[in-house]
Amino acid sequence: MDVAILAHEKFPDLAKTATGVLRYGDRNVVAVIDRDRAGERVKDHLAGDVRDAPIVAGMDEVPAADALLIGISPIGGGFEESWRGDVRAALERGCDVISGLHYFLADDEEFAALAAEYGADLWDVRKPPEDLSVAEGIAGEVDAEVVLTVGTDCSVGKMTATMELARAAREAGHDACVIPTGQTGIMIEGWGNPVDRVVSDFTAGAVEEMVVERGGEYDYLFVEGQGSIVHPAYSAVTCGILHGAAPDLLVLCHEAGREAIHGYESFELPPISEYVDLYESLAAPVAPAPVVAGTLNTAGLEEGAAGEAIAAYEAELDAPATDPIRRDAADLLEAVL
Amino acid sequence: MDVAILAHEKFPDLAKTATGVLRYGDRNVVAVIDRDRAGERVKDHLAGDVRDAPIVAGMDEVPAADALLIGISPIGGGFEESWRGDVRAALERGCDVISGLHYFLADDEEFAALAAEYGADLWDVRKPPEDLSVAEGIAGEVDAEVVLTVGTDCSVGKMTATMELARAAREAGHDACVIPTGQTGIMIEGWGNPVDRVVSDFTAGAVEEMVVERGGEYDYLFVEGQGSIVHPAYSAVTCGILHGAAPDLLVLCHEAGREAIHGYESFELPPISEYVDLYESLAAPVAPAPVVAGTLNTAGLEEGAAGEAIAAYEAELDAPATDPIRRDAADLLEAVL
Repeated sequence: MDVAILAHEKFPDLAKTATGVLRYGDRNVVAVIDRDRAGERVKDHLAGDVRDAPIVAGMDEVPAADALLIGISPIGGGFEESWRGDVRAALERGCDVISGLHYFLADDEEFAALAAEYGADLWDVRKPPEDLSVAEGIAGEVDAEVVLTVGTDCSVGKMTATMELARAAREAGHDACVIPTGQTGIMIEGWGNPVDRVVSDFTAGAVEEMVVERGGEYDYLFVEGQGSIVHPAYSAVTCGILHGAAPDLLVLCHEAGREAIHGYESFELPPISEYVDLYESLAAPVAPAPVVAGTLNTAGLEEGAAGEAIAAYEAELDAPATDPIRRDAADLLEAVL
Repeated sequence: MDVAILAHEKFPDLAKTATGVLRYGDRNVVAVIDRDRAGERVKDHLAGDVRDAPIVAGMDEVPAADALLIGISPIGGGFEESWRGDVRAALERGCDVISGLHYFLADDEEFAALAAEYGADLWDVRKPPEDLSVAEGIAGEVDAEVVLTVGTDCSVGKMTATMELARAAREAGHDACVIPTGQTGIMIEGWGNPVDRVVSDFTAGAVEEMVVERGGEYDYLFVEGQGSIVHPAYSAVTCGILHGAAPDLLVLCHEAGREAIHGYESFELPPISEYVDLYESLAAPVAPAPVVAGTLNTAGLEEGAAGEAIAAYEAELDAPATDPIRRDAADLLEAVL
């Protein structure tokens, strides 16, 4: 399937869905749409093992494609009206539109009408299934070892760490599966419950259901964490995933240099050791899970500084850490498996 | 308004909505419906300052009433088919039906048709407003002192503690308001967001919105907590309320003798001191809030044993505690205000 990815004014650093799909998806990406970077290429901005594609200013410059994928999600998950022209143009070309926004495109009258007229599908990834319910407290009973990525904040690399760890485990010959909990993970894996969009009482249940479903088929489940346990807005989802997944082990994800909650700058991040204590003490009454490793996003640093930052992070964590993009998640397998 | 309260097989100990409305609501209760206790009276079971009413076996034995209120909510919030006859009978008499279930009566074809036919209203209290969004992290900025009740488990007395503390504060001459977060609180207060039913990403935001709305009008806000931070299914809601309300103080609520999570008996409750540490350390990065007092539900104990249990609980908490039903929430005001 050939897709174009919309990421206006946000590519690459604030377009984590776009970069996740470019790195880990199996769709062919024909273009990224970002009016601020038109004429550049994906490879100008993203290092490592990633699909390349041209960056264009709008849907009218995109070559033949089967779908337009919304690759950015502002705080709150709303639809930006400045994207409407591109979505309209995609539908008028018969392209499906795949979106992980809280705002459902299928509920937008203009998009629904255009989709019907041109025979295109609107796939709102964040629309949860109808049959979710409360957790039963049984995820801890699965045979698989469950590894959960947790974070110091949003957008510090939990999804990336999950994908890279699962890939490294598979390359090392293990039977490993990703449990996707957010829009990007679901777009990449092609299944999953959008845990941040379910009824709040069903948060843990939405994760437990997936862990139980896959826990008998695989030796290792890598559960994609969300948010942060100290986030003023999103900690509920983080906590629900922690207890719903009942993990055996935790991997703490952080971005080098991050000092305050993104978008909530009056809230300083606590020390790394406090995160370790918080996650472990909160996990313990439901399912004890030590923090056994860490990932550090060092994309903003030069190589020398990155190495120093990783070493410092390892010391704070008292556990092995790496940047899974700059280095290799396989470095953590010994601690995690 | 004259109401009947449905509480089949659960009155009084497992019917917290029923008992909450009997104790704190301003509606006149003409009957409680519980087929297991027909012929008895409310006062046979509930101590303290509570409305009395006869207990009957079904809606056909209820005298003239304006509404039937569903006073029980099973784990999961589903509708029990054994209640259908009573709801049907109420609607056929033109009674409104008020429900706090996750299952919306207005979406039930038979009930919707009967309500239309007989001119009755179906009020699904747990249906959240459409305009909720993510928290902005601003609840900590309100002028009012915010007191949040937190718990060791579900159904340990958080709603009761909230109502009793607010009442005691008002009786002592303070300008105090309840921030209701659950179906019972909303039924009693006549407003509020059903936090356990909102989109999980909006959990904190649904509480913050209420705190901000009332925080300029009152000196004290008593926020009704939900669940428990160690609950395998409901901790997400607890965590979202903790961070969304950004409380100044916490009151830890517990039931004497409770040793395991209700309905999840393989999960033992941690020691009280661990709860204090967990709630305080989780609150701190967003809004520091010490546990300054406790409430203990001693309904299952004789007077002597109750006194001993309260004294033991105070020692574990290292803070004053009381049973607000058996004793008086006013005993805690010095610690809380």
